[in-house]
Order: sequence, then C-alpha cells, then structure tokens
Amino acid sequence: MTAQGIIYGIGLGPGDPDLMSVKARRVLERVDHLAYFRKRGAKGHARSIAAAFMKKSVSEFAMEYPITTELPPDSAPYRESLAAFYNESAAHLRALSNQGHEVGILCEGDPFFYGSFMHLYERLKDSQPIEVIPAITGMSAAWTATGQPITWGDDVLTVLAGTLPEEDLCRHIKATDALVVMKIGGNFDKICQALKDAGKYERAWMVEFASMEGQRILKLSDVSEGRKPYFSIIVVHGEGRRP
Amino acid sequence: MTAQGIIYGIGLGPGDPDLMSVKARRVLERVDHLAYFRKRGAKGHARSIAAAFMKKSVSEFAMEYPITTELPPDSAPYRESLAAFYNESAAHLRALSNQGHEVGILCEGDPFFYGSFMHLYERLKDSQPIEVIPAITGMSAAWTATGQPITWGDDVLTVLAGTLPEEDLCRHIKATDALVVMKIGGNFDKICQALKDAGKYERAWMVEFASMEGQRILKLSDVSEGRKPYFSIIVVHGEGRRP
Repeated sequence: MTAQGIIYGIGLGPGDPDLMSVKARRVLERVDHLAYFRKRGAKGHARSIAAAFMKKSVSEFAMEYPITTELPPDSAPYRESLAAFYNESAAHLRALSNQGHEVGILCEGDPFFYGSFMHLYERLKDSQPIEVIPAITGMSAAWTATGQPITWGDDVLTVLAGTLPEEDLCRHIKATDALVVMKIGGNFDKICQALKDAGKYERAWMVEFASMEGQRILKLSDVSEGRKPYFSIIVVHGEGRRP
Repeated sequence: MTAQGIIYGIGLGPGDPDLMSVKARRVLERVDHLAYFRKRGAKGHARSIAAAFMKKSVSEFAMEYPITTELPPDSAPYRESLAAFYNESAAHLRALSNQGHEVGILCEGDPFFYGSFMHLYERLKDSQPIEVIPAITGMSAAWTATGQPITWGDDVLTVLAGTLPEEDLCRHIKATDALVVMKIGGNFDKICQALKDAGKYERAWMVEFASMEGQRILKLSDVSEGRKPYFSIIVVHGEGRRP
C-alpha cells in the first residue's frame, strides 16, 4: 500500500515573494504538485507570487471559482455552488495524496485567516495528512507600509470584514483602539460612513496592494468614493501607552 | 560625509527560525551589527531564534530591560525608567547608523504588533533611515497549532491584552466572533473568569510556546489555575459562514 502524500497549505504571505517564510519557500521549491485558486480567465494571484520558485516540471491544478460576486454570499445557490466546487477540488487533491504525491496548495496571506484554503482543509483534514504553514498576513504588510505601529501597550485590535452591515461596523469601530478593515471592494462608501459615525475617519489610512507592485498608502480622507481594488486594507492605529 | 547606515527592524516571527521570512533571513545573515532586547541575566529569546544565522564576526548590542513586572506599568517610575532605557538604546543605535553602519534590531513576532522595537522606532524614525520587515505573528502560529482556522466569512476578530480589567475583557469577548488573548502570564485566572462570564470559556484553547520547542495545545478548561508562561496565547475560533 502506498503511503499517503502530505498536503501542504503553503502560506505565501502578503504578496512580496521575499516575505514568504523560509519554510514555505523550501516546500514550494520541492513539491511536484501545486494547486491554487483563481478567478476564471485570470492567471491567479497566488500563482504569480509563487511562480519564480516552482519546479519547471511541476504539475499544476488551477481551481477556478465558479462565482464570485454575482450572487449574494448568504443565498442558497451561492452556498451550493461553492460547496460543490470545494468538494470537487478536495476530491482531486485527496486522490493525489492517496497516490502518494506531496501536494502544495498555494494560499495568499495566512492560510487560516479568512482564506479559501480553509474550505479544502475542512474537507481533507480527517482523511489526509495536512500541514499548514502560517504566513505574514496582508494586514501586517499594510500597517508596516504606513510606517506606524498598529498596537501599543494594552490596545485592543479589531479586524472587520467590510461586508458587515454599517451599524455593526460602526459599533465595533467605536469599541476598539486599533482597527483593520478587510474585504473593502464595493463596501468602501459604507465603511467610510461607519468610520465617520464612530469618530475615527480622520485617523484612518488605506493601503492598496500592500507589499506588491503598485503599493499605495493614502490618508482615507484623501480617497474618493467608489469601488476599490480587492487588495485594499483600511487601518486605524492604536494610541496606547508608550514610555 | 559618511552616509547613514540603514537600521532594520527584523521581524523574526513566532519562534521557529524556519518561519522567518526570506528577507529577514537575508538581512540577518548580512549585517555587521545586531541589537536585541533581553531580560537582565538572560540570553535573550530573540537572539536565540537568530543565533544560527548571525555572522561569526557580528557585533552584538544587548539591550537589557531595567524593569519588567516589578512596577505597575501605569506608574510614573515605570514610565520614566523605561523611557530613559529606550532613549539610551536609541542613542547608541543612532551613533552606529551615523557612522555608516547597517544595524539589525531583532524583533520577536511582528515588529509593529505590540513590540518593544516600536519604542526605538519612534525615537529613530525622524533622523535615521529605518526599514521594518514584517513577520508572522505569535497569534498566527498559535491558531495554526490548534489545527482550526481562526476566522471564516464575516467573522470579527478581536485581539486583547490580558492586562486589561476583567470587565473590559468580558465586554470585548462578548462582542466578538473570534478571539486572541495575549499577555497572559499572571492574568490567567482573570481572563478565564471573563471568558466564563462571556460564555466562551468552553470553546477556548491555550497554546504555550507556539512553533517553539515545548509547544503545547490545551483546551482551556483542562488548564489549572495560576501563572502561565510568557509565551502563552488563548484562542477562540470563529464559527462564521462556510459553504
């Protein structure tokens, strides 16, 4: 009987290939099978971070999202479509592992922090050996880019998805010292309103494409309304104790 | 006139040297001057993570905390003692940089996330060239160690310092989906009480020495009362949307 191959969740970090861990780089350079998510018709952002380090002979498995923003994420058709997609993807990876192949799954950011990888992990963890390699988060690259520490002393840090309702955003923003908002995209105007209502708009920064080509760091109050790039993160720095 | 040497805040990550970034490793292997914090009389944890990669000829500058837990952190003597310590340390690093030396400052975890480095950074950033290299946080290593994703879908993540008053802890714990509590040490019993009052004690995990030798992963309800190691992190996983 063939031993099962290990499946690696390879955290690639925020985008700059130099910011992936030594361990992630080593596994990436070694595995014969690599899987990654991408939008239909796109090359895949995770793949582009990893490209320079993949074996020439590597076998690639591109997992293309069936839908992204066409359906509301709390609708049954959305859930069913994605569940089927994750089931099929996991079945393919399980077969590779059962044949004894090591497989790397490329993960943008940290695999266990709001990542699509988690949906494969839940489907594979009970039957296959899986190792998850943590990584630098996009938010870490964003606050580093602003040139200001995010949390001091006893500061509370809250991380919010911009997809939340405005009143939830506002309540959490009021209650925290330091703030990170992810998943901005089409939620930008709502997030700005919540920040204004919570009295933190003037202190907020937006970082686009943190650690990537095209990185931009802007005072939020200098940003015009409307949809923002997927790789945008809003940051409000804590102001806690500093001797 | 000599050009100023760059000061690097080298994020070392959570403890496993393989989890530092490729960039951090490269800078670490190159610089002729390294500075790091440590307790009086100790070898220094940051130094031990970095030790295998430092140049044999490297010049070391150990910055020994004048106090740690002997004084309350909101007292004037505590603040003054630490401020003097940071001022003197920064003056030494400034002199090295002005002489044209590149200097690396070793930072456990991510430099801008609750790190002592930030106090040097604030004192040096206006006069010296400084580059901060982000890193994998200790909390990322902790949730990875539990084998469960920390945040799903629209989950709110809150990071708390265990040094906060019990009622503040309880209020924030109630309001969040996913939770990380750092700075546990002597605050353990208070944190447990706040988790119980907020109804999340049964779902909480504690990770000691995440990614380091001696890593332990425990259900919080299996942990006895009393002081815990400095490198302990409590985690409650989010339970958000998953197709």
